[in-house]
Amino acid sequence: MIKTINGGVCAAQGFKANGVHCGIRKNRTKKDLALIYSEKIASAAAVYTTNLVKGAPLHVTKSHIENGKAQAVICNSGNANTCNADGIEVAEKMSELLANEMGIKASDVVVASTGVIGQPLNLQPIKDGIPSLVKGLSKNGGQDAAEGIMTTDTTLKEIAVEFEVGGKVCRMGGIAKGSGMIHPNMATMLVFITTDTAIAPEMLKKALSTDIKNTFNMISVDGDTSTNDMVTVLANGMAGNTEITSEGKDFDAFMEALNTVNVYLCRMIASDGEGATKLLECNVDGAKDEENAKIIAKSVICSSLFKAAMFGADANWGRVLCAIGYSGADVDVNKIDVSFRSAKGVLDVCKNGAGIEFSEEKAKEILLEKEIEINIKAGDGNAKASAWGCDLTYDYVKINGDYRT
Amino acid sequence: MIKTINGGVCAAQGFKANGVHCGIRKNRTKKDLALIYSEKIASAAAVYTTNLVKGAPLHVTKSHIENGKAQAVICNSGNANTCNADGIEVAEKMSELLANEMGIKASDVVVASTGVIGQPLNLQPIKDGIPSLVKGLSKNGGQDAAEGIMTTDTTLKEIAVEFEVGGKVCRMGGIAKGSGMIHPNMATMLVFITTDTAIAPEMLKKALSTDIKNTFNMISVDGDTSTNDMVTVLANGMAGNTEITSEGKDFDAFMEALNTVNVYLCRMIASDGEGATKLLECNVDGAKDEENAKIIAKSVICSSLFKAAMFGADANWGRVLCAIGYSGADVDVNKIDVSFRSAKGVLDVCKNGAGIEFSEEKAKEILLEKEIEINIKAGDGNAKASAWGCDLTYDYVKINGDYRT
Repeated sequence: MIKTINGGVCAAQGFKANGVHCGIRKNRTKKDLALIYSEKIASAAAVYTTNLVKGAPLHVTKSHIENGKAQAVICNSGNANTCNADGIEVAEKMSELLANEMGIKASDVVVASTGVIGQPLNLQPIKDGIPSLVKGLSKNGGQDAAEGIMTTDTTLKEIAVEFEVGGKVCRMGGIAKGSGMIHPNMATMLVFITTDTAIAPEMLKKALSTDIKNTFNMISVDGDTSTNDMVTVLANGMAGNTEITSEGKDFDAFMEALNTVNVYLCRMIASDGEGATKLLECNVDGAKDEENAKIIAKSVICSSLFKAAMFGADANWGRVLCAIGYSGADVDVNKIDVSFRSAKGVLDVCKNGAGIEFSEEKAKEILLEKEIEINIKAGDGNAKASAWGCDLTYDYVKINGDYRT
Repeated sequence: MIKTINGGVCAAQGFKANGVHCGIRKNRTKKDLALIYSEKIASAAAVYTTNLVKGAPLHVTKSHIENGKAQAVICNSGNANTCNADGIEVAEKMSELLANEMGIKASDVVVASTGVIGQPLNLQPIKDGIPSLVKGLSKNGGQDAAEGIMTTDTTLKEIAVEFEVGGKVCRMGGIAKGSGMIHPNMATMLVFITTDTAIAPEMLKKALSTDIKNTFNMISVDGDTSTNDMVTVLANGMAGNTEITSEGKDFDAFMEALNTVNVYLCRMIASDGEGATKLLECNVDGAKDEENAKIIAKSVICSSLFKAAMFGADANWGRVLCAIGYSGADVDVNKIDVSFRSAKGVLDVCKNGAGIEFSEEKAKEILLEKEIEINIKAGDGNAKASAWGCDLTYDYVKINGDYRT
């Protein structure tokens, strides 16, 4: 039983957080520095962008949590600290400044940055901001931290859940920064998850690596993989459960909670995609195997033509078939059924790869909703997958076509 | 020596063409049926979309030119004849109607359709239109044919060249339909090339299959591979050269002419991409091998983020690096140089994977031009490749977000 609760990244025992404006961003009303802190050193795991161009903070974080342990997360917005000659040095210095102020080890700090690529990150505002950032740490600071990592996200993204592991109540919370951009080069997804579950670092890593295949690797806003993507989990064990050191019932309970948190954040990120007016969820069933189900779901979600059709509330199923056809999936296109679904109902549009008659009026009514499911039934097996994305809109072009200058 | 000449697909000896309005499209001022005819049966070769969902005419054409021979091309616009239960039957019937009218074999007809997917194609207007289509065949009909295959292309796309093979003057012409769409589902690239060069079918096939790897497979408007893409060449041998039956000097001369025609049509298609305001040409040099050079060039051309930046004339080189980083190419990102170039000059923006200072004013001046080169120098070898695309604009969203109804 997983129950949604309040508190975000501070919901789990022993975690505090804060977010402040330190001056990296010019707009003084926007927080640009966030901190998450665990009373106890926590098991830590992270996954990073597969882009060969990686933000300097990712390299530093990777080396810091190589031992599977961390105690704090510091993250600035407004500058990605990527493609800068002094990037690694600056990210290391950020960790040290925080560690010194808190009396913890710099090697226990997870460091992250999000914002413009290729502009040197000035350490001075961070240096100046850290004392008040640390001083203001609080059990109620989850939202402040969530705000501190936003760039042009239009919604704050946080969730927390309660679940049981071995008879003990555990909590897990997460915050995310999605891909709403006005100042370009910020398509940098960041997710920070905290939990008081006791779990060994290697099992935490296993849980995260497994779950992201079905969650964060199944979302797309524009097909551009960022240089700064990172998902991290800190687990401090303060819930008092017997430490999870192998697979089994406890691990399954943890996985279920992690999946709940991640799917929720995925949907929030996709629906707040750059310029998005709609959340698209593509569910594939009847595929040959999971790999093929994923390829199909992701291809539909990534099709610019289909995304533009959804913006126009146009039941253009031919574009769904087209995207399946070029996806590279092993699929019999003559056995595909497609339907659209929203709060306003369900509409079958394609059977066995060919169009069927439907009411354009009903189609429009369904597709004008804010959340649209595209349900695809292949006739090749029993495997399923889901992917999340958003529509392609004028605002996407506007946001990304604006001059940097 | 390759010389540009007039005449399009009628430039080569023995070819005539025509285009008429037969009634598939409602707008009577728009031609919707095109014909290209060779006096002599010609060597024929074609390449088709790799989409598993293929338009019915592609299947029919494939079987018709299996013997390497064809004499006529018929193509309608306004309806793709794809994902229709009776598609194959309709495409066969189109060939038969034309063959009967002309006294040629139905199996010597190349048939193509472009337009909306999933709506039955009514044969009646085609049947009614064929007599006047055939009657009007003329040496001056190249432009009419080029018009007949346009959907919402904003420019007519044709070219012809003159070259020598074995001391004989040969001619080659081509017309293309690109991906300007208003009525959705028409991202269907069609190219028809005619030549009077004598060349054996297997060598013609080899020439075409080889050249498209560097031309039509290196363009992208929106990353969506159409169900109806097709490039065909008819070579009727009337130039009187000794038939090209193997590789060598003559084959090289033919390849050079074919490449000239194809690159020209590629640039025309890319620059007339849906909603495009700019042609983008990405040239990669210094890559490890040709495969890696192509992967890099295509990844940059396909990046929505970068395309939107080009629309905004924003010298956002971070997005170029980002697209190289996630391309999957084997490349050292710390050795990459990037520059932008147009009629207004050249601007270096990135050296060894890091930004360098540049004048934003100069950048804007260069990027406000209609044709932009993105020149990338990798430090891994000597291989080169080019790719062509266009910017991502409000009009792309408008065109593709419109209701079908």
